[in-house]
Amino acid sequence: MVILGIDPGLATLGYGVIKVEGDRRRLIQFGTLTTPAGQPMPQRLRAIYQGMNQLLDIYAPDEVAFEELFFSKNITTGIAVSHARGVALLAVVQRTDNLYEYTPMQIKQAVTGWGGADKHQVQMMVKTLLNMREIARPDDAADALAVALTHANSMNMKKMFKIQ
Amino acid sequence: MVILGIDPGLATLGYGVIKVEGDRRRLIQFGTLTTPAGQPMPQRLRAIYQGMNQLLDIYAPDEVAFEELFFSKNITTGIAVSHARGVALLAVVQRTDNLYEYTPMQIKQAVTGWGGADKHQVQMMVKTLLNMREIARPDDAADALAVALTHANSMNMKKMFKIQ
Repeated sequence: MVILGIDPGLATLGYGVIKVEGDRRRLIQFGTLTTPAGQPMPQRLRAIYQGMNQLLDIYAPDEVAFEELFFSKNITTGIAVSHARGVALLAVVQRTDNLYEYTPMQIKQAVTGWGGADKHQVQMMVKTLLNMREIARPDDAADALAVALTHANSMNMKKMFKIQ
Repeated sequence: MVILGIDPGLATLGYGVIKVEGDRRRLIQFGTLTTPAGQPMPQRLRAIYQGMNQLLDIYAPDEVAFEELFFSKNITTGIAVSHARGVALLAVVQRTDNLYEYTPMQIKQAVTGWGGADKHQVQMMVKTLLNMREIARPDDAADALAVALTHANSMNMKKMFKIQ
């Protein structure tokens, strides 16, 4: 089973692709979709939608896991990320309903066993679990791999998008 | 020239269509796209995207004006509306770059001449300007007509989506 993990963002959207075969998790690819800060919002959304469709074409994931959004600090960033997350979700739901979301705490819990782990500890565990030589860069891509691993590790407690 | 005004929302997205012929503004249509609260976010976004495409098919607007988002009160609502606004913008930008946005204050200013006007005053002016018998209902549709009128009244000071 191929799992695509998404860490949503407007300037930088991270993605990570893994393959689950029984107890094994194999790294397929990771990277980012980026849009230039100088471009108006609608054009940036179009670019993200196109990029998401390319990822779905190339990797044909069976299931897709998104990081859930919580914002307490910067409302402007929250609005921008939510626009981008909307079009990324749209691209996926046009192909499959196998869509899941996980909170940052669930991701830390699933990857490191501890909901209070810091970013570096999560990245080290992603590297270890996927037998990578280096920590994935940039952070957005590492976060996306963590979401994908969370989904792989959470098959028994997986949660579809909540009703809202 | 046909102008489509959009008041974005996840549960209820308001739309208003007007035709500008010289100094005349003629009402074409208004209404809402709605999604059920019990449905997961991705499916609601898909429904909004499909509904937007139907509006664009039916009314073939030359220009589209969106209400800009500001959130100080409810961050959860802000995130939900921003998801919906993202897919609505995407549907438009896939067809035209003639996309504009106006703040709530610009809308009040343009429609009533006063940035501090209340909702009822705006709705009364929309009714008057478009020679309607009744105030447009629900509020989301009336707001969408106000955005469309704002764009019609602001041709000389119109503003493309800002760089962000």
